[in-house]
Amino acid sequence: MLSTQHTSNGPTASLTRHLAEFVSRTSWDEIPAEVQHEAKRALVNYFAVCTAGARDPDVETAIKVYKRFSANAQASVIGRSEKMDVLNAASINAMTANVYDFDDTHIPTIIHPTAPVAAALFALAEMTPVTGREFLLALVLGIEIECRLGGSISPTHYQRGWHITSTCGVFGAAAACSRLLKLDIPQIVWAFGNASAQSSGLVETLGSMSKSVGVGNAARNGLLSALLAAEGFSGPDQPLEGVRGFLNVMGENPDLDLIKSGLGAYWELSSNTYKPYPCGVVLNPVIESCIALHAEKDWFDDELALVELTGHPLLRQRTDRPHVNTGRASQVCAQHAVMVGLLTGRAGLAEFSDMAVADPRFRNLYAKVKFVDDESYPVESATVCIHLKNGRTLTHKTAVAHGSLNDPLTDKEIEDKFKLLAQDSFSPERVDELVQTLWALDEAVNVGHIMKSAQDRNSNLRAALRRR
Amino acid sequence: MLSTQHTSNGPTASLTRHLAEFVSRTSWDEIPAEVQHEAKRALVNYFAVCTAGARDPDVETAIKVYKRFSANAQASVIGRSEKMDVLNAASINAMTANVYDFDDTHIPTIIHPTAPVAAALFALAEMTPVTGREFLLALVLGIEIECRLGGSISPTHYQRGWHITSTCGVFGAAAACSRLLKLDIPQIVWAFGNASAQSSGLVETLGSMSKSVGVGNAARNGLLSALLAAEGFSGPDQPLEGVRGFLNVMGENPDLDLIKSGLGAYWELSSNTYKPYPCGVVLNPVIESCIALHAEKDWFDDELALVELTGHPLLRQRTDRPHVNTGRASQVCAQHAVMVGLLTGRAGLAEFSDMAVADPRFRNLYAKVKFVDDESYPVESATVCIHLKNGRTLTHKTAVAHGSLNDPLTDKEIEDKFKLLAQDSFSPERVDELVQTLWALDEAVNVGHIMKSAQDRNSNLRAALRRR
Repeated sequence: MLSTQHTSNGPTASLTRHLAEFVSRTSWDEIPAEVQHEAKRALVNYFAVCTAGARDPDVETAIKVYKRFSANAQASVIGRSEKMDVLNAASINAMTANVYDFDDTHIPTIIHPTAPVAAALFALAEMTPVTGREFLLALVLGIEIECRLGGSISPTHYQRGWHITSTCGVFGAAAACSRLLKLDIPQIVWAFGNASAQSSGLVETLGSMSKSVGVGNAARNGLLSALLAAEGFSGPDQPLEGVRGFLNVMGENPDLDLIKSGLGAYWELSSNTYKPYPCGVVLNPVIESCIALHAEKDWFDDELALVELTGHPLLRQRTDRPHVNTGRASQVCAQHAVMVGLLTGRAGLAEFSDMAVADPRFRNLYAKVKFVDDESYPVESATVCIHLKNGRTLTHKTAVAHGSLNDPLTDKEIEDKFKLLAQDSFSPERVDELVQTLWALDEAVNVGHIMKSAQDRNSNLRAALRRR
Repeated sequence: MLSTQHTSNGPTASLTRHLAEFVSRTSWDEIPAEVQHEAKRALVNYFAVCTAGARDPDVETAIKVYKRFSANAQASVIGRSEKMDVLNAASINAMTANVYDFDDTHIPTIIHPTAPVAAALFALAEMTPVTGREFLLALVLGIEIECRLGGSISPTHYQRGWHITSTCGVFGAAAACSRLLKLDIPQIVWAFGNASAQSSGLVETLGSMSKSVGVGNAARNGLLSALLAAEGFSGPDQPLEGVRGFLNVMGENPDLDLIKSGLGAYWELSSNTYKPYPCGVVLNPVIESCIALHAEKDWFDDELALVELTGHPLLRQRTDRPHVNTGRASQVCAQHAVMVGLLTGRAGLAEFSDMAVADPRFRNLYAKVKFVDDESYPVESATVCIHLKNGRTLTHKTAVAHGSLNDPLTDKEIEDKFKLLAQDSFSPERVDELVQTLWALDEAVNVGHIMKSAQDRNSNLRAALRRR
């Protein structure tokens, strides 16, 4: 008879304890097959963006500093030759996933859910052997906690200035690691408490490397929270719902019922999406239309008179940046996205680099872009209308952008994304092998082995060659 | 001609840059002699509380976990035998200072200012040689930034639920370490940016060890922010005053003018105080009166009918806790403070331990305490009136509690606090030597040496004996 435990699940139980019980007791068989599969899609995409991010010069700086404070070589850095202790590896593998904003997006909250949770779990998996199934279950549960907490304080939390991936990611990582460490329920409550003391991250830091410090910390500190709880390091009883707890302090009027509603029935991973381009998601339909227009381009650049972008007002509010001057900033700049799409037909990392932003072929045409707000457009939709100097117009409308919830990337497309982003780091054979391992992860005996094969032993040599 | 720099100091300069310039350019000679001396008083008190905190069993747990992730033995833990890398040592030496809430209090903000800043600086001083004067200057500047940021968002920031010592401490530590590392002005702006991504800590965690995770992080992450900035890790231009920056996101209507007003003329260390008892400051006058009444105690415990406490309503609001059951919680419990004061005449760490709280001699009399709110009392004042069963009453009023700004502890009393708290860890000769070194710190050639002599090589042996 579980009567005591049932009572504590009832309406009088604290929210934190309720979630701790959910994290502790949910079994793999309770996760629907499509959610199990979504977790693997999230991981293939995760390895893709980590491999690309691992080559970023600023990430190399972070590795250089963090390595000075790494106790041992227990955990791998994806796409690099360095090994670090598990806390530092968690930090770096979350940074690399998110540094180009090319990782996944949970649509209701705009959390990038996988980076903090997977980075913490992979580090832990190199510390203590776990099966693929244990790993995937912990990932699903961590993302569930992270996104449900975020959902209860959205959209005001982000609007206020909180970088929601970091602020909620630390709880997702703490929950996932608690499960993998098989913590008991009071310990999971403590892990949430230790995480609550470390939840941070500001929107002001976006576009600078400070953002990556926050995202890295979310993974690192979530893992640390669980490791401390495992040793009996106590937290408050109600770190989430308490009067001075996370939800009330960092949210406005948090919706606590929303967190519990349908828990274990509806899964937040079902609202996860993967980006075809390394840009803010509102740019997806714009780029798609521009690439379509490029395919039929029969005019010269200097014939361009005007490009009219029609879309939801958020498109203009988030991306009207005619004066960008770094690759990082161009990822949220419609002017730049339009020009690389129209003039090259491509929109990959190279098109959003410092070098691309410095190219006068694109820059000189930024001023030709005009926005037309239309409230009737959903954010995944946009129309691009080109006006040439001879009076001719060319129009393309994207009704539902590819990569959105209504038109998700296929498994094959996520694989292709990995192959493209990994081509400078791994042989095609190695990428294929990693992809196959991830699709069969629920059969894996020891997840730690996967991380070892995701190392690139020549990363420093490659970096030196790039710097030449 | 410094005309460009002068312009950037003017009203159009960003607040963050203004503070970065202040941190970079202020010289030791610009610090008034009494503020220079106050910095030394803060350090003697800091070593006192660190030495006591280093014996706490929960801190031992933190050391055990953090040591697993320590890269080397570069930095000392005060009052312990362990050495750790500088980031972990900064964490632990901030935790130990604050774990008993026995450290200093900046009255206008209730920030405990020294713990995060000094812990970060002492770690850095074991990494790179610095003179005592450089060290003290960095300490003064870090505390100035920390308390001015806190002041601009007080009292609503703490009331909302932010643990202000942690949230502002990370900026104080970043500023202090930036100065000690001789960062240039853009780098100091980046250090503030990296700190802004890591500012965290909730009031909900007080009374649990999660609080200490936050305080430790403030020191650790402030130091890390400066080390990253030194390597070129960028932050936003306006991490403090930006629309989505620290002050606007974590404060309500921040008073930016207050931060700049009198900068370099009035010094926040002038508003710093040191506690005679390991309790919430509002209990100071109550304990002082109870100890005075104990000195003339000529009645038996069971003659006690009622103890009337008259004070500012905050006294009741913060300390009316008749059901405490841990030493940590008893530090903010008037019932317990009254009984140990009246019945033993003492109010040290032993009187606020788990053992003291379990003692029926005190517990059984908690219910005798009644509060009388009187708005006319300042918080540093209280009256204790004892009613005996035979009708006799005994009254003592403390008009200005010792340890308050208006009646500060003397240098000798701070020294005595150190001697008392260190007696289980160091010989009297060692304590004397440390105290003399601290009073002469502005003459020290290499501060790192001081930390080595603040180690207790037998701490693990002592801990084992205590556990018997």
